[in-house]
Amino acid sequence: MRFGIIGTGTVGRTLASKLIALGHEVTLGSRTKDNTSAVSWADQAGPHGHAGTFQDAADFGEVIINATAGTVSLPALQQAGAERLAGKVLIDVSNPLVFSSAGEVSLAPVNTDSVGEQLQRAFPDARVVKALNTLAAPLMVDPGRVPGEHQVFVAGEDVAAKTVVRGVLEQFGWPDAAVIDLGGIDAARGTEMLMPFWLKLMGHFGHTDFNYSIRSAD
Amino acid sequence: MRFGIIGTGTVGRTLASKLIALGHEVTLGSRTKDNTSAVSWADQAGPHGHAGTFQDAADFGEVIINATAGTVSLPALQQAGAERLAGKVLIDVSNPLVFSSAGEVSLAPVNTDSVGEQLQRAFPDARVVKALNTLAAPLMVDPGRVPGEHQVFVAGEDVAAKTVVRGVLEQFGWPDAAVIDLGGIDAARGTEMLMPFWLKLMGHFGHTDFNYSIRSAD
Repeated sequence: MRFGIIGTGTVGRTLASKLIALGHEVTLGSRTKDNTSAVSWADQAGPHGHAGTFQDAADFGEVIINATAGTVSLPALQQAGAERLAGKVLIDVSNPLVFSSAGEVSLAPVNTDSVGEQLQRAFPDARVVKALNTLAAPLMVDPGRVPGEHQVFVAGEDVAAKTVVRGVLEQFGWPDAAVIDLGGIDAARGTEMLMPFWLKLMGHFGHTDFNYSIRSAD
Repeated sequence: MRFGIIGTGTVGRTLASKLIALGHEVTLGSRTKDNTSAVSWADQAGPHGHAGTFQDAADFGEVIINATAGTVSLPALQQAGAERLAGKVLIDVSNPLVFSSAGEVSLAPVNTDSVGEQLQRAFPDARVVKALNTLAAPLMVDPGRVPGEHQVFVAGEDVAAKTVVRGVLEQFGWPDAAVIDLGGIDAARGTEMLMPFWLKLMGHFGHTDFNYSIRSAD
């Protein structure tokens, strides 16, 4: 399958490399042509990995992944172009972290809105699925880094799009039973708002190889 | 030990009854004297259970539990009286849920503040520990309702106070290994912000007998 990844940070490159390893074809898109990290990624990715602009990535992908910082996802995807997203599954992996000059972390949007909802509103013809924003990049594509059963979450309005995303997650190593469907895209508020808790857990463990396992009575 | 519980809702009454069953003495405090739910709770609680005002409960307790709605916790504890909280462990179990007329749920405070921090700022001589706000009342005092290992979290500035709270949690059925210390009281932001996610999980499971298990690589 052809994937267009918007954003060339750790998350974007990690997902891109995994998709290549799985036999998919990827264009890693950056704000400007000739972005160093996109070009150097493509150089080592082999014939199925390409670098380009946000527009190039959105044009290329049958499935689009938003791997930009959540605070700038909306303008990034506007630059990619609504017409290039229309009808496509858009996996939103972002979290809208704001770092204050005092080193404090908060979220924007938060509480009564989320990046997932912003994107679905701005691009009503895209099929937005919030996913994979609840764990560190290496773990997204290698669940075995954490022992035992643990889970990832999907949220979105389009049931068929969530099925597509479940298929991608399964290829990443997340079996169907490890994927919890939280419902509509407004559930993105909940998963984005996990971030402050996640950061405290990172402080507690001293690393990012941890994840949520939701235990339930039958 | 003597506990003063501020708030007579499900959480307050559930904790009060468990504490009585464990052999402790409890005053369940309400805004007004002769609150029906406090009085009827005390009637069936036996000789160690008492009903009273917020002030009575705060006077009575060696340990105070804030079980009011997070949106009104500050005025409730101001009514209880700062002088009655000074030097005492104050376990803050609250979540600041706001229900809109459209049925939408949000939090206030949120993101750059939390009820836990509000209380610690307002009552600097109280030893605030955020705890037990991440799960349903029946599960707080009966972890076995959910099979397997799962966890609760503490956050606060006073290490000795957190040790006291760990002792209470252990009596509730949470062994030391099931309690994760998230650090200072600002970590209350993170646990309070779990609520939107928790509500979506409740929708997914159709009940409240579920909890977080944080799985980590060694």
